[in-house]
Amino acid sequence: MSEAQGQEPFDRRMGLIALDWGTSSLRAWRLSETGAVLQFRQQGWGIMHLPEGGFAAAFAAITHDWMQPGEAVAAIACGMVGSRQGWREAPYVPTPAGLEQLSANLLTLEAGPGIKLHLVPGVLETNDPLAPDVMRGEETQAMGAAGRLGGDALLVMPGTHSKWARLRGEALNSFRTMMTGELFALLRQHSILGRGQAEAPAVTQDAKDAAFRSGVLAGQTHGASARLFSTRALTLTGQLELGCALDYLSGLLIGEELRAAAPDLASAARIAITGDAALCERYARAFTLVGAAEPERIPDTALDGLLRIATRAGLLPASASDGAA
Amino acid sequence: MSEAQGQEPFDRRMGLIALDWGTSSLRAWRLSETGAVLQFRQQGWGIMHLPEGGFAAAFAAITHDWMQPGEAVAAIACGMVGSRQGWREAPYVPTPAGLEQLSANLLTLEAGPGIKLHLVPGVLETNDPLAPDVMRGEETQAMGAAGRLGGDALLVMPGTHSKWARLRGEALNSFRTMMTGELFALLRQHSILGRGQAEAPAVTQDAKDAAFRSGVLAGQTHGASARLFSTRALTLTGQLELGCALDYLSGLLIGEELRAAAPDLASAARIAITGDAALCERYARAFTLVGAAEPERIPDTALDGLLRIATRAGLLPASASDGAA
Repeated sequence: MSEAQGQEPFDRRMGLIALDWGTSSLRAWRLSETGAVLQFRQQGWGIMHLPEGGFAAAFAAITHDWMQPGEAVAAIACGMVGSRQGWREAPYVPTPAGLEQLSANLLTLEAGPGIKLHLVPGVLETNDPLAPDVMRGEETQAMGAAGRLGGDALLVMPGTHSKWARLRGEALNSFRTMMTGELFALLRQHSILGRGQAEAPAVTQDAKDAAFRSGVLAGQTHGASARLFSTRALTLTGQLELGCALDYLSGLLIGEELRAAAPDLASAARIAITGDAALCERYARAFTLVGAAEPERIPDTALDGLLRIATRAGLLPASASDGAA
Repeated sequence: MSEAQGQEPFDRRMGLIALDWGTSSLRAWRLSETGAVLQFRQQGWGIMHLPEGGFAAAFAAITHDWMQPGEAVAAIACGMVGSRQGWREAPYVPTPAGLEQLSANLLTLEAGPGIKLHLVPGVLETNDPLAPDVMRGEETQAMGAAGRLGGDALLVMPGTHSKWARLRGEALNSFRTMMTGELFALLRQHSILGRGQAEAPAVTQDAKDAAFRSGVLAGQTHGASARLFSTRALTLTGQLELGCALDYLSGLLIGEELRAAAPDLASAARIAITGDAALCERYARAFTLVGAAEPERIPDTALDGLLRIATRAGLLPASASDGAA
């Protein structure tokens, strides 16, 4: 367990416990009533990797000694913990969804004696009835980012399931999921395109960069599906070093994402990106390669979002989330 | 080992042994000098699943008692046996490639005492230097199909790696690979989209057909990448029964294939399809769903192709492949 001690005085009676509880990890913050971070802990207890005793045991362990017995501290959590496979299902709220809709639809359960845990609902994209979409966890990041952006923007959240969200006046107006990260992982681990990587001769960073560039341009121009197999053909003809094949493949898939998002990219007044720093860097490179504006980088906004939703729900004083954002 | 005995008299001194030797299976025919099938055997000895003793042992076992000791019988093989991971590499010949180019570039090795085995080369698509493509095995099927079609056509060979080939005057003029089958298998087995299938409640065939139809239309109109995650979102919203999710996904991926092939489909004078019967049936449905002409079905043409190439190479009398086609 990693743990960090904040600098502010520890007030056991007030404040909030905030959790970002996803599929593969659990992060927990002990916050003062002004929203300052007093303590932070992280565990690999994603909802698919719970310790013995399940959700309640994980919650008790990660918040250990953050509350006196019987103390009524509020807690809030976002992410897959509120899914059908989670602790309890917090039903999706439809787009458009902002702080008001999210805070009004928290699902409350008793996480321990006297401890109310409020689960942030996911969001259901309803703009195209034939193509619904869902998010759970990213709506909270989006609320955090919205606090910083302060107005209309296109917010890109790359990852296993990349989300492209349109913020209108700080509310999530619409969004679209691309399975880029999951597809890349599948193709690398299980397909013919990942074969031989372990024994591939070393390559230069320049060669890797050039391969990524070719992939992005091919994916954006022709689509990833049409060019997927060329990853293999290019290595067979010697035009692509085997050690660069995954860079090319990564480029192809991100290029496909940019291809699908072309209308959004063209019409967005402001573009921002948030998530894993290395991945955001990779996406930012792809943006410039296809001639799009470089997106603003926004650091991890899950905690900001939890604070803003908790504040709107009255779990913290109104001044708390100002400080965090 | 499955085995079938032909009706013609067995002439040990003449004729040909023809092999279709791919990644996952090995099929062998004993042919008379007129190209008639005398015997047929099949084994799971694909190049990734060889018995002890490797290629030579597999060859000896599957042709067991088809030759007298010391008898000089010619053999021909197509498929991954001629790849870098195969028995010996038969280098790719570039497009355009017909009987002339393939038969002139057979790679010959000694498969046993006095037994010459001729490996059919694969074909390298060279029309776009930035996007080379390769096939190995399908060129032989294409030669078989070309014998039946007798002229220009678009030939679709669906499978793990679907091939869309343009035949011009019986030669392979160009082709493109789509990894549809491999992608479907990966997504079904390893992704979030295949989750829960084992426990899914039973569904009707009508519901499955409707899901496939929706998938084809969505994939062809919007692209598979843009709609992949909707497979999950549609089941979460109850718009798609879990037991129909894979039909929808299959439709999406085939729809994407039709989307990528749209220019070919529009310009082809004649469209034919060959391969696994159930898969061809599924593709033919997709063709009609998107308003394309229903493709002509051509039965398995690997043996026809081997016969035509062997005949052109002088391994059989010129009259042999007439009978087969």
